[in-house]
Amino acid sequence: MKPTDTQPNATPVASFGQRLADAVLQKKNAVCVGLDPRTLSLPETIRPKLPASLESQASAFETFCLKIIDAVSDLVPVIKPQAAFFEELGPEGMRVLARIIRHATQQGLLVILDGKRGDIGTTAAAYANAFLGSGPEGGPTYSAWGADALTVNPFLGMDTLEPFIQRCDNSETGLFVLVKTSNPGSGFIQDTTVNDLGISSPGKSPPSNISEAIADEIQALAHGRIGPDGYSSVGAVVGATYPAQLSAMRERMPNAWLLIPGYGAQGGAAADVVRGMDGRGLGAIVNSSRGIIFAHENPKYKSLPWIDAVRNATLDMIEALRTAHS
Amino acid sequence: MKPTDTQPNATPVASFGQRLADAVLQKKNAVCVGLDPRTLSLPETIRPKLPASLESQASAFETFCLKIIDAVSDLVPVIKPQAAFFEELGPEGMRVLARIIRHATQQGLLVILDGKRGDIGTTAAAYANAFLGSGPEGGPTYSAWGADALTVNPFLGMDTLEPFIQRCDNSETGLFVLVKTSNPGSGFIQDTTVNDLGISSPGKSPPSNISEAIADEIQALAHGRIGPDGYSSVGAVVGATYPAQLSAMRERMPNAWLLIPGYGAQGGAAADVVRGMDGRGLGAIVNSSRGIIFAHENPKYKSLPWIDAVRNATLDMIEALRTAHS
Repeated sequence: MKPTDTQPNATPVASFGQRLADAVLQKKNAVCVGLDPRTLSLPETIRPKLPASLESQASAFETFCLKIIDAVSDLVPVIKPQAAFFEELGPEGMRVLARIIRHATQQGLLVILDGKRGDIGTTAAAYANAFLGSGPEGGPTYSAWGADALTVNPFLGMDTLEPFIQRCDNSETGLFVLVKTSNPGSGFIQDTTVNDLGISSPGKSPPSNISEAIADEIQALAHGRIGPDGYSSVGAVVGATYPAQLSAMRERMPNAWLLIPGYGAQGGAAADVVRGMDGRGLGAIVNSSRGIIFAHENPKYKSLPWIDAVRNATLDMIEALRTAHS
Repeated sequence: MKPTDTQPNATPVASFGQRLADAVLQKKNAVCVGLDPRTLSLPETIRPKLPASLESQASAFETFCLKIIDAVSDLVPVIKPQAAFFEELGPEGMRVLARIIRHATQQGLLVILDGKRGDIGTTAAAYANAFLGSGPEGGPTYSAWGADALTVNPFLGMDTLEPFIQRCDNSETGLFVLVKTSNPGSGFIQDTTVNDLGISSPGKSPPSNISEAIADEIQALAHGRIGPDGYSSVGAVVGATYPAQLSAMRERMPNAWLLIPGYGAQGGAAADVVRGMDGRGLGAIVNSSRGIIFAHENPKYKSLPWIDAVRNATLDMIEALRTAHS
């Protein structure tokens, strides 16, 4: 839970963009561990007896995620809990989500909450207050969930991102806007050709599709908000499964952190995802969820205790990215 | 909390589309009361002392929303809690949201949870399990939140709607897909011209923009799923603030319920929103949030106890829609 910087003479806070750069440089890798717990895939020692109540599933998720956080906190800079898997378990799942975020923060990890939220006006502001640091009107001056960053959906229009960006400007929090997602059907809207948006950006070609148009808007927002290492708190989600688009997106958004899902289980390879990074290894974080948290299901790690499987899979991913980047 | 119909010989359930038609015909209006509580706008008798903790705000939201539900349950067919305002208060807010949904259901109201969720693959399935009736794998066979319908965001692609539609087919639940939202910037993506999607629908012009392309996909899904009154459980969100587009959308999606936000506070008029309805007054539900729940702030109702203001504002909206429709 991070107090916001709203007083005119308060000590300036470090931006999320710079905090992420610092964390990646300190840990010497850009791996993000995705916390996507699912009851049927939990290790036997943690899985509740089936059928399991919502409460016992939530309790198992808590044990599982806290152990993973403890196992990877010295290795990686950031974790990404997926809100859906906690919402699936109702209010008790949400309580566990809050505890997991708090524990990860205490262990020195940055936390990106993957909620893909998006709405208009005061509703967008409520989501921003919930996750990005300033709390509700008339209440505490910290956010209830205390994430460091949130994924958001731009479908409702760039105006709907303003409340989120305002929170990022006034606190240590950040934003990852969906630009190109990793699923097979992502092109239906995202690859739609645009030819009449009237956007022109100096030094680059006009956007040819919706994803590029969003990317150009994000770069415009990011450009004026960079920290010493050149990246801002306004980032983008770009899937690993479309490598050519990933390279193009890196070029279109030189000041935006890219959050790259789709590595491993979804088919993205190390050689693909390093296209999102600059020469220093900054500019992109690469998420793996199932490949790490359910490593005990992988024949390669099957002989190990599940938590050692998690740690070894994390180390192997770090090494794979390092090799591909060098 | 509604058990799902998964056994081959189980009694067939009524679809959400038909349940909504029945409710609108029974209540003789299509008003949806939006539950968007905000601490600073609560009536004085309910507003906690400021600054108020998250817990005391959540408790005030519960009192406020339960009283509203009791005041309108004999008048309107449906309510729509906005997830963001409960998420803003953290886990305790989510607990209150669950209680509100349960109470509304007990009072005979249909509940559309406005969460605008959207994600890919197993994550979309988790959101569907959470809100639309079948519960998590390995757990209970009912959803943790027990809503009757959910708003969803199609930006990630039509493939990402499949898990939601599957839940609707197997239970009494429904879906409202964002098609055209009511905010000023909604056109950035939604109005983008399309000319190469290769979609052609018999008897109508090809889609000219993203919103129309989504609408045609929704109609294709809705067409095969209609109940006796002609509407399916797959609906669409179309804002009241773009009346010409609302008429066009009604024509493009003859079998989809439209959820129309933007009435009242956002500027949509009764004459505009009735364009979404058929001759029987079916086919569209019209949401008002602030105009009803914060009616005590309106000079017209200011002399009344706040809960009477809520009831009178609801009755006035019902009458305005009835006059405009006749």
